[in-house]
Amino acid sequence: MSREEALKIILDTVKPIERTESVGIDEAVNRVLACDVRAEVDVPPFDRAAMDGYAVRAEDTFRASQFNPVKLKVVGFLHAGESFKGEIKGGECIRIATGCPIPDGADAVVMVEFTEEKDGYVLIFRGVYPGENIASRGEDIKRGEIILKKGELLTPAKIGVLAALGYRRISVYQKPHVAVIPTGSEIRDPASPLGEGQIYDVNSYTLTSILLENGALVTRSSIIPDTFDDIISAITRHLDHDLIVFSGGSSVGERDLLVKAIEKMGSLLFHGVQIKPGKPTLFGLVKETPILGMPGYPTSCLSNAYIFLVPAIRKMARLPPKDPRVVRARMGVRVVSASGREQFLTVKIKNGVAYPVFKASGDITSMAKADGYIILPVNLDVIEKGEEVTVTLFD
Amino acid sequence: MSREEALKIILDTVKPIERTESVGIDEAVNRVLACDVRAEVDVPPFDRAAMDGYAVRAEDTFRASQFNPVKLKVVGFLHAGESFKGEIKGGECIRIATGCPIPDGADAVVMVEFTEEKDGYVLIFRGVYPGENIASRGEDIKRGEIILKKGELLTPAKIGVLAALGYRRISVYQKPHVAVIPTGSEIRDPASPLGEGQIYDVNSYTLTSILLENGALVTRSSIIPDTFDDIISAITRHLDHDLIVFSGGSSVGERDLLVKAIEKMGSLLFHGVQIKPGKPTLFGLVKETPILGMPGYPTSCLSNAYIFLVPAIRKMARLPPKDPRVVRARMGVRVVSASGREQFLTVKIKNGVAYPVFKASGDITSMAKADGYIILPVNLDVIEKGEEVTVTLFD
Repeated sequence: MSREEALKIILDTVKPIERTESVGIDEAVNRVLACDVRAEVDVPPFDRAAMDGYAVRAEDTFRASQFNPVKLKVVGFLHAGESFKGEIKGGECIRIATGCPIPDGADAVVMVEFTEEKDGYVLIFRGVYPGENIASRGEDIKRGEIILKKGELLTPAKIGVLAALGYRRISVYQKPHVAVIPTGSEIRDPASPLGEGQIYDVNSYTLTSILLENGALVTRSSIIPDTFDDIISAITRHLDHDLIVFSGGSSVGERDLLVKAIEKMGSLLFHGVQIKPGKPTLFGLVKETPILGMPGYPTSCLSNAYIFLVPAIRKMARLPPKDPRVVRARMGVRVVSASGREQFLTVKIKNGVAYPVFKASGDITSMAKADGYIILPVNLDVIEKGEEVTVTLFD
Repeated sequence: MSREEALKIILDTVKPIERTESVGIDEAVNRVLACDVRAEVDVPPFDRAAMDGYAVRAEDTFRASQFNPVKLKVVGFLHAGESFKGEIKGGECIRIATGCPIPDGADAVVMVEFTEEKDGYVLIFRGVYPGENIASRGEDIKRGEIILKKGELLTPAKIGVLAALGYRRISVYQKPHVAVIPTGSEIRDPASPLGEGQIYDVNSYTLTSILLENGALVTRSSIIPDTFDDIISAITRHLDHDLIVFSGGSSVGERDLLVKAIEKMGSLLFHGVQIKPGKPTLFGLVKETPILGMPGYPTSCLSNAYIFLVPAIRKMARLPPKDPRVVRARMGVRVVSASGREQFLTVKIKNGVAYPVFKASGDITSMAKADGYIILPVNLDVIEKGEEVTVTLFD
């Protein structure tokens, strides 16, 4: 099965989360709106001064100029947060701060820069037209308008819109809840003492990190021994999650146990992908819960997580597909594609030149040093030194 | 003062956080390492099988071929997590799962695909060279090697390296702790009833969102009235933070209070930037704490946050500078630059054509609808319809 076919099966199977929850708008950035947002108020909620200056009847100022200023009586001073109860009459004005409501009678604001105040009167040196320097009620958002839609990603600006409309909390979709289950009789949790033939669990930590970065909640289970009964029981215990990801099982025997467990409890949708590294990746469904089995080797597990798990979890979390940054580079060495499979080659870029960092498929350092990867198509045998390639960056 | 000069002053003033804390590696993604990491173990910690198959003495297999297989005695079966106490002698082999330690005496693994087992013996149809299909002890990481350096950003792959080395917790730099202080006698917290002339606080929520996205911890203060004493007291109460950000104060009078407060308590480093929107942005230092005063209009506040606050907080958090995505687009309408200032024009992109979304500087919806922005230089008066422009995307 090709990578494209495998990814299509995964994306056809996983479903966007329907559960919602209410969160404070101060913690809602990058969450996904679960309702349309209709404006219950006008923004601004009243005609207001867009500048510091004098609220006037515009017609009083029409003849004003630098050499023939108009003189108006100042009947008050509105500071921020204040409003004026009376009405501005012909020949009158009121000093006003930006953001204050325009008093009745006034229909424009003269900027303070074009005035001179003295003894209760102000000289106006420039005329204004009706509406000048006023932000009208509802100019930004009109009451009744649907201003944000269900499914929109909440950016800082959209959170600002919610605040402007008076929302302190908002309904968003819940994050998909993923169980990461490390398996393997030979693996131990970091910081435990290592016995003969044992190694530390790497994959459940890299997978957890990737899931957290892509909008999931993660439960990392304790390490499950490689027995059929333990795997059946681990799946059963985690069926209340939105997705189960198994990490580990680098030997054929271990993978076969997971295949058999899924076949017994539900259905296996694929096992084996024509991609290097990553051949052993498998996917199935038990009741409503999709189960992804990742390769055991850390680099294979990680690159397959970028290829299959990230698109799956972003669909479930209703996040837009990741649009990775790509750069062009020249290959620093000759690369021979060993397999008849599509190949992911991790590279480091120095001064526009790409060098492979891959050592052996068990190596985690190669991924840690890589800036990105090149995809070698199935039918490509060699990339010559100096040839131009497209590198997809990890970021 | 130009944008470049203002940004330089800010970046010369704010300091990367020196405080560290210990976090679990399962929550350390995107944190910054506060120590060099030296490998205390070899990875892998022993010579191990890189394939499922038979661990053999390579010399026993040299003559093996499809038509002349070599027959070896199978003296055991190592499943994942098991190891073999004895030694493999001439004419012997052991069945071995990927990842198991290579027993003494054996020096290669024959892949199971090239074998046939029957009655305690196995036929080997292909020879192997010494070391074939073995991952040697320390091949990935050598004990004593410094494998990750202080200041590195922890990606999923680097968290995998920490796990492989047996670290369950790791020392990272603390996140900068920022106080966001909304000011303004006219603003109310969302969900409170609005009185005459009052509007909801928008800026402290957009700023909080931007800060959280860029690696900060945020304390949002209650709304501070526009009086000199209240501002002095708000600064005093928050001096234990790494940065204080004032939002609000769209009128000249309000801004002047903050200017005077900073001048009384410390030093004002700049006030006013030749950029539109954003002229009123100010920056100062009280004791050791930098204070950034943002414009009061939501769009001005938000665009100035992208210009000044994001680089500042990322330096403090020791995160790499944001490398924004840029696209080329054609201008959908003729744009006239009104000011003698550098101008940030927010745009929406449809089918490769950029349309301004800016309505008035008080509008928050314009930012919420924008895909990115164009910078119009100080000396540029007009962009013709159809002219090519560079759009920096918000993402």
